[in-house]
Amino acid sequence: MLSLTSHFGLFTPIPILAVVEAENAPILLTGVLLSLVIIYLASKIGGEVSQKLNLPPVLGELVGGVIVGVSALHLIVFADSGLPVTDSGVMSVMQWIYHISPVALNNVFESQSEVISVLSELGVIILLFEIGLECDLRQLKEVGVQAVVVACVGVAAPFAAGTIGLMTIFHVAAIPAIFAGAALTATSIGITSKVLAELGQLKSKEGQIIVGAAVIDDVLGIIVLAVVASLAKTGEVDVSNVVSLIISATVFLIGSVLLGGVFNRGFVLVVEGLKTRGNIVIPAFIFAFFMAFLGNAIHLEAILGAFAAGLVLDETDTRNELDELIKPVADLLVPIFFVTVGARADLGVLNPAVAANQSGLIIAIFLIAIAIIGKLITGWVVFGQPGINRLAIGVGMIPRGEVGLVFAGIGSASGAIDKPLEVAIIVMVILTTFLAPPFLRIAFDRSTDSLPEIE
Amino acid sequence: MLSLTSHFGLFTPIPILAVVEAENAPILLTGVLLSLVIIYLASKIGGEVSQKLNLPPVLGELVGGVIVGVSALHLIVFADSGLPVTDSGVMSVMQWIYHISPVALNNVFESQSEVISVLSELGVIILLFEIGLECDLRQLKEVGVQAVVVACVGVAAPFAAGTIGLMTIFHVAAIPAIFAGAALTATSIGITSKVLAELGQLKSKEGQIIVGAAVIDDVLGIIVLAVVASLAKTGEVDVSNVVSLIISATVFLIGSVLLGGVFNRGFVLVVEGLKTRGNIVIPAFIFAFFMAFLGNAIHLEAILGAFAAGLVLDETDTRNELDELIKPVADLLVPIFFVTVGARADLGVLNPAVAANQSGLIIAIFLIAIAIIGKLITGWVVFGQPGINRLAIGVGMIPRGEVGLVFAGIGSASGAIDKPLEVAIIVMVILTTFLAPPFLRIAFDRSTDSLPEIE
Repeated sequence: MLSLTSHFGLFTPIPILAVVEAENAPILLTGVLLSLVIIYLASKIGGEVSQKLNLPPVLGELVGGVIVGVSALHLIVFADSGLPVTDSGVMSVMQWIYHISPVALNNVFESQSEVISVLSELGVIILLFEIGLECDLRQLKEVGVQAVVVACVGVAAPFAAGTIGLMTIFHVAAIPAIFAGAALTATSIGITSKVLAELGQLKSKEGQIIVGAAVIDDVLGIIVLAVVASLAKTGEVDVSNVVSLIISATVFLIGSVLLGGVFNRGFVLVVEGLKTRGNIVIPAFIFAFFMAFLGNAIHLEAILGAFAAGLVLDETDTRNELDELIKPVADLLVPIFFVTVGARADLGVLNPAVAANQSGLIIAIFLIAIAIIGKLITGWVVFGQPGINRLAIGVGMIPRGEVGLVFAGIGSASGAIDKPLEVAIIVMVILTTFLAPPFLRIAFDRSTDSLPEIE
Repeated sequence: MLSLTSHFGLFTPIPILAVVEAENAPILLTGVLLSLVIIYLASKIGGEVSQKLNLPPVLGELVGGVIVGVSALHLIVFADSGLPVTDSGVMSVMQWIYHISPVALNNVFESQSEVISVLSELGVIILLFEIGLECDLRQLKEVGVQAVVVACVGVAAPFAAGTIGLMTIFHVAAIPAIFAGAALTATSIGITSKVLAELGQLKSKEGQIIVGAAVIDDVLGIIVLAVVASLAKTGEVDVSNVVSLIISATVFLIGSVLLGGVFNRGFVLVVEGLKTRGNIVIPAFIFAFFMAFLGNAIHLEAILGAFAAGLVLDETDTRNELDELIKPVADLLVPIFFVTVGARADLGVLNPAVAANQSGLIIAIFLIAIAIIGKLITGWVVFGQPGINRLAIGVGMIPRGEVGLVFAGIGSASGAIDKPLEVAIIVMVILTTFLAPPFLRIAFDRSTDSLPEIE
């Protein structure tokens, strides 16, 4: 069975390959299982602690990842970040159990890193599929033009200010500057709508504009990500390239939704015709994975395809059942993504005690400032709404979340952004998410107190 | 970011590694997504056709795998079976989309094979976790001693006859002979109970003995598998080794169930205390994956640990909710296992037109005969039950299923059995599963017709 080396006749004298030989396959599985146990423990403990502190669970999952990752415990580290196998806690356990050679251990380490990375990418695909499913395009019409204006300004302002600032003030190259600027664009629907619900403001005028704008933000953000990631692959930034990418990403998304009307009826018919177990989830995942494959294959992004697949599956009985069925799958795969993002982020690159880190630290502070100011101003572009709480709208748009982390994860995996920039983006996401809930409370309190005085 | 090669300073002049370089990571993801789409299509179409023909869906999933695999369409093939990358349909599509070098393509091929293999192993872990959950140990007490006798004879007879026959008649080496003998042991609970339910015989005396014996069979079969796979790893077959392995596997299983009583209460308390999404599935999977890790780490089998984890989680409100939540996860991961087993099986090695295949073909026929006779005789060991339909009991024990395929999959992945033997086991599983439903109908019909004449 061990004919792995046969494709490499050229190197037969060197019996070393970074794939795992058949006799080491159980070691790979053991390593993956242990990694998953650690990842799930980190995500669950982090999420629960975060919940107890009245913060969004995703923040705790991210911090849990930071704790088990390269910044602290070194349990979950990745071969492609250039760390030696001796730095991996999981691999040390494997060495202790199996006593294999350092070279074989290194091969297992590289394969384990790849498997966990692919699982985390499947996690983000399912996350975006779920976000797409929850995104109700008809609802957007009702929120109207105010939300569109808030969303567009909230995407354009931080993107432009971030990119131009990084390029002119900090002399960052075009591609990483565009990537970091793009990471500032998307407001987190989940975090914002949860805090608004807690404040009883979800159905207020301000709440509806914020949520509507956050939804549009997400769509715009994903288009921006597809374009930026595609730019990073080719390495060329010329106007015709950017324009054609924006057009193809938009056409892909709109085309999917339009064709989706037909597909949606077909999907319900197929699901109703199927009689065996998995009659809903398997067709849904065939569709989501195929669209993700298509997104990657046309050199955009897998998550754009998954998001489009979610948008397409319209509200039906089957869809509502699908929502329930996807939850446990998402609960198992999505945390792998968040913990992986945290585990890969080396917070050490922002340690102010190290002189070489100070430029990175200043960039991080700059990004955070732009992230806050760029969204805060959106409250003041709302027009024709006398007495509206403009501060609350601006503050409500501040928290970044899943999509910002998706930018950091994809940017880092593709090599488009370097470590300090990646960490700066992650710190930006963490801080904006931490700050938004208390600030939103204050903003709405002020409004309630001063309500009678407003004309 | 591309410092992967740095651990291999020794080989720096040769810039070839079988890990995927960072710029090829999207290609790996694209390849995995396309593979999953093909696997799900094969499993769903196969399962539904099977269902229409009144056969168990798992059979269709297996045949679907054979069709997309190495025996027919070559869409899903695996690098570790020694096939060149040019034989992989998925990789040809990757080449067509990305135009990468043959060496880079080969690296993606090997990584994609590893990722799909690990996903399929996670699938079989979840399958055994689910089987463990459904296994009610208290119910076994009621079915009583008859089921135990039927189960023990039904495990011992085909195991002994198969192993000894292969070694003496066909001069197969000890380890593969033991592996093939072991693969003959486990009756499929799922297939048998489904056919019995269709015949309205599930609650009959015969039906209860068959289902009870099939449950015990599964437990014995998994212990046998853990022991045999461990033997295959060490390569040594001496009595003290076998005895210590049987003891450690049994102690592991019984110990888990005994300690499980305590754990079970703890599990319910933990789950009730958790407030964030995934409060049931994540703790359940932490436990299942940890037990699977432990099973592998003590040099037994991951699936033994997963099965023990399932047995431990006792009937509670939380457990019943867990059953529902695990279904979609199992629906997505288990088919990857069955399709992979089918895809890896090269039916060409049994083509009777090729002279070299004839010994393999004769071995397959021998295994099928032993598989049928070894279970058929179990009907005649039932005692103290005058008028019982002994033929129906014997026939009811014939269908092998999931566990038999687990043997073939693990045996082939570990290199313990060669291709003709692996294919012979798969053909044995397919045929016994095909034959049992119609034969069981005939056996029960005869009983109904001749009921008044039996004393």
